[in-house]
Amino acid sequence: MKIIVVGAAGDIGRAVCAELSGRHDVITAGRTSGDIRVDLADEPSIAEMYRATGRVDAVVCAAGEVEFGRLAEMTGDKYLFGLKNKVLTQINLVLAGLNAVSDDGSFTLTSGMLDRDPIRVGSGSATANGALAGFVKAAAIDMPRGLRVNVVSPGLLEASAEKYGSWFPGFEQVSSKRVGLAYLKCIEGGLTGQMVPVD
Amino acid sequence: MKIIVVGAAGDIGRAVCAELSGRHDVITAGRTSGDIRVDLADEPSIAEMYRATGRVDAVVCAAGEVEFGRLAEMTGDKYLFGLKNKVLTQINLVLAGLNAVSDDGSFTLTSGMLDRDPIRVGSGSATANGALAGFVKAAAIDMPRGLRVNVVSPGLLEASAEKYGSWFPGFEQVSSKRVGLAYLKCIEGGLTGQMVPVD
Repeated sequence: MKIIVVGAAGDIGRAVCAELSGRHDVITAGRTSGDIRVDLADEPSIAEMYRATGRVDAVVCAAGEVEFGRLAEMTGDKYLFGLKNKVLTQINLVLAGLNAVSDDGSFTLTSGMLDRDPIRVGSGSATANGALAGFVKAAAIDMPRGLRVNVVSPGLLEASAEKYGSWFPGFEQVSSKRVGLAYLKCIEGGLTGQMVPVD
Repeated sequence: MKIIVVGAAGDIGRAVCAELSGRHDVITAGRTSGDIRVDLADEPSIAEMYRATGRVDAVVCAAGEVEFGRLAEMTGDKYLFGLKNKVLTQINLVLAGLNAVSDDGSFTLTSGMLDRDPIRVGSGSATANGALAGFVKAAAIDMPRGLRVNVVSPGLLEASAEKYGSWFPGFEQVSSKRVGLAYLKCIEGGLTGQMVPVD
């Protein structure tokens, strides 16, 4: 299969690429690195990416940003930032790709565990994660040509623990291998409309 | 208890008011009717509402708007409309009320069943509903002074079936009584961080 991985340079993106590279033709994409540069916050940039790749069999997104903060410090704008930069970005990647992905192909998005296993500063992330689970559940029943859409929701990666671990006291870490497998299952398997947790 | 019900004039708001009125002091609020006029899309309007009511024991929100449409007709802006007018509005109602609700008081928000029981035109709604479930799950663990926050997720109300029923073939309808009870449980009970389905 020919597979685009957006956000390939991040910890999750690298886990995905490591799992897929031996089996598939992977095209890496990202804002500042990769085979193709793409800014998911810019719809024309997404369209340009699909023009550059031509038809693909699967699209993975491992990119997204949210604001973190204690509830009393959060503002509407901070929630909106995550809804725009983690949710709408990935939704736009799906909408723009409806004609670019081959029959029975798939979109695999990325959320995270903070809507099932919350931390105090994580309500912005939890809001975005929940939105993505809702989106794939409903979008899956209206996809054309057998296309599928799922969202992988990884826990704290071992590879990310040095950077972010202090925010997650007592959280078990998940290996990059297990995270990569979840994406592989979504791409090569038949799942659709699912939130796939990796805990 | 002194309880604000925002969106009191809608089908869900009326069900809530019917259940609460005999037991509590209900202040109705809405964009075009009610004891107090409030526009949840306008943050100063929310602050003004809380100034007008003074301290309250519970806040219910039964207001929200989303765009409906087949996936191929949806756009980023249509998803954003729902995220702003059903999710951020209710989040802003909570943030602005953190100092207005008395100790151990509660916020009860409203989503809907389309993220667990989807329809083809409902991915905008499902995205917003999922976001609200994620928000309450995380916000609940960082609320001050024992405050609680939940979201009721009603199925198709009997009272709404004449207007909207054609969109929901085969969906069982739920009575206004059962919907009102779910809000009463959230207000008088001890739940927090929960998505409370009424199916």
